[in-house]
Amino acid sequence: MELWYTEEHSPNCRFSLRVTRQLHSEKTPFQQLDIVATPEYGRVMLLDGLVMTTDRDEFVYHELITHVPLACLPEARRVLIIGGGDGGTAREACRYPRLETIDMVEIDGAVIEAARAWFPDICAGFADPRLNLTVGDGMEYVRKVAAPYDAIIVDSTDPVGPGEHLFNEAFYRDCYAALGEQGVLVSQGPTPIQPEFAGLLREQAEFIARTFDRLYLYLGHIPTYPTGTWCFLFAAKGGIEPLGSRTDAGWRTFGERLRYYNPGVHRGAFGLPNYVRRQLDGLIANDRLDIA
Amino acid sequence: MELWYTEEHSPNCRFSLRVTRQLHSEKTPFQQLDIVATPEYGRVMLLDGLVMTTDRDEFVYHELITHVPLACLPEARRVLIIGGGDGGTAREACRYPRLETIDMVEIDGAVIEAARAWFPDICAGFADPRLNLTVGDGMEYVRKVAAPYDAIIVDSTDPVGPGEHLFNEAFYRDCYAALGEQGVLVSQGPTPIQPEFAGLLREQAEFIARTFDRLYLYLGHIPTYPTGTWCFLFAAKGGIEPLGSRTDAGWRTFGERLRYYNPGVHRGAFGLPNYVRRQLDGLIANDRLDIA
Repeated sequence: MELWYTEEHSPNCRFSLRVTRQLHSEKTPFQQLDIVATPEYGRVMLLDGLVMTTDRDEFVYHELITHVPLACLPEARRVLIIGGGDGGTAREACRYPRLETIDMVEIDGAVIEAARAWFPDICAGFADPRLNLTVGDGMEYVRKVAAPYDAIIVDSTDPVGPGEHLFNEAFYRDCYAALGEQGVLVSQGPTPIQPEFAGLLREQAEFIARTFDRLYLYLGHIPTYPTGTWCFLFAAKGGIEPLGSRTDAGWRTFGERLRYYNPGVHRGAFGLPNYVRRQLDGLIANDRLDIA
Repeated sequence: MELWYTEEHSPNCRFSLRVTRQLHSEKTPFQQLDIVATPEYGRVMLLDGLVMTTDRDEFVYHELITHVPLACLPEARRVLIIGGGDGGTAREACRYPRLETIDMVEIDGAVIEAARAWFPDICAGFADPRLNLTVGDGMEYVRKVAAPYDAIIVDSTDPVGPGEHLFNEAFYRDCYAALGEQGVLVSQGPTPIQPEFAGLLREQAEFIARTFDRLYLYLGHIPTYPTGTWCFLFAAKGGIEPLGSRTDAGWRTFGERLRYYNPGVHRGAFGLPNYVRRQLDGLIANDRLDIA
């Protein structure tokens, strides 16, 4: 028997992976959770039928969403991860000896359990004593939290599904309030290439641009996400600047162990193609950066 | 009836596009040539069943393969394009008023005719009086050519098929000889992500590194090519340096009309992820560039 997983990137475009074996399938209170083994990308976690994490390319997403903000914050001590149930973002954050507290709030405990069972390397950070894992609603959590964070990383599902309410203005306002005087929020955004998502991306950027002091966008190459081009929104509170602390020694202590991130990638990721700059004209401040 | 085109990116990974209509299908003396209309990417040209050009994302490939070398060569007057039958690379080269001669050698005349018929916007450069279009074997052409070029752009098919002989050391030696004292050869390479291609990419890089004075690699985001991450090899003869002439005003006169290329993209494209740097360790000189 041939077994294939197919994701509709749009009604007119499909991406398919051969499946060796279905490892796990569960309807959680929040979403459909599946795990399959594939020859091409190793184990793959799917939420509501969309690829979230694969053994083979997860490092791109997790290194970009974590190290870009943290390399800009040499004084960071407290980090909040919203979502991130597979554990990859926590793993990357745990590499920084200077972090004292890594709070993580994932709405779906089943995702955490599945990660523990099937992705032990990705969720290795769960064992770190600095990591406080809460199963709950990130939006509520951030509204009530007291001590300020240096960075908030929104590692959620897409704007459709259980992560939906993490893409609204009230949430970003609460995040702004939950940061100290200087801080960064990073959130994944959709691909800037597919016209279907262009409106969502612009709306997300508008919410953040209204709430934060300055917004930047950066890109990464993620083969298993639609179009392979993925974007991240970097929202600054206070004077934090994405290319500002590039001499930060924090990540250099473990930089050799990383598979994607380095200072050249960091700077280059903010160098946006013209069509992306035009799409987000007036909302992002990338043109202020000294990239060229 | 539902009509779909499916490309096997590997035996375990497929990419499919809905097809509105098959526009053209022809067995040329060199390859199978198909053109289909798709809702997702507009018209798509396929050679031997692989996506070569689409209306909607061709600009990424063509701008990157052309402007990265030409922006580094403010004195360039003579350019040779090998392959490039769809016309996109010629179109981009024709934007430079300072170029006096743009020679293009495409092995398959049927590709040129199909481009004229179905991709009039892409092959607009064919009408430029500076463009000399030759239907013939690029390898033979470059072996015999007399006057030196400032840049050679190898816009060929993949290392399997009619472009195969453009990926060997003798060809790169001839290209080196066909350049003036200072010059650049740029060639597309495969994706650095798929293990199937890693050997091919390393071999191609070894050939070029042995032949040219210095080799660099740069990346672009091309949704319809396998993994969405594509690479280009930048081979320097003499002291040409990829970030050296970034003040070149050549492309600035038309830069606003481009959809991908700008100086930030140029520099950022040379900022390679660690896994790519390691794959080509000892062959590429990207680490000498001031990217971070």
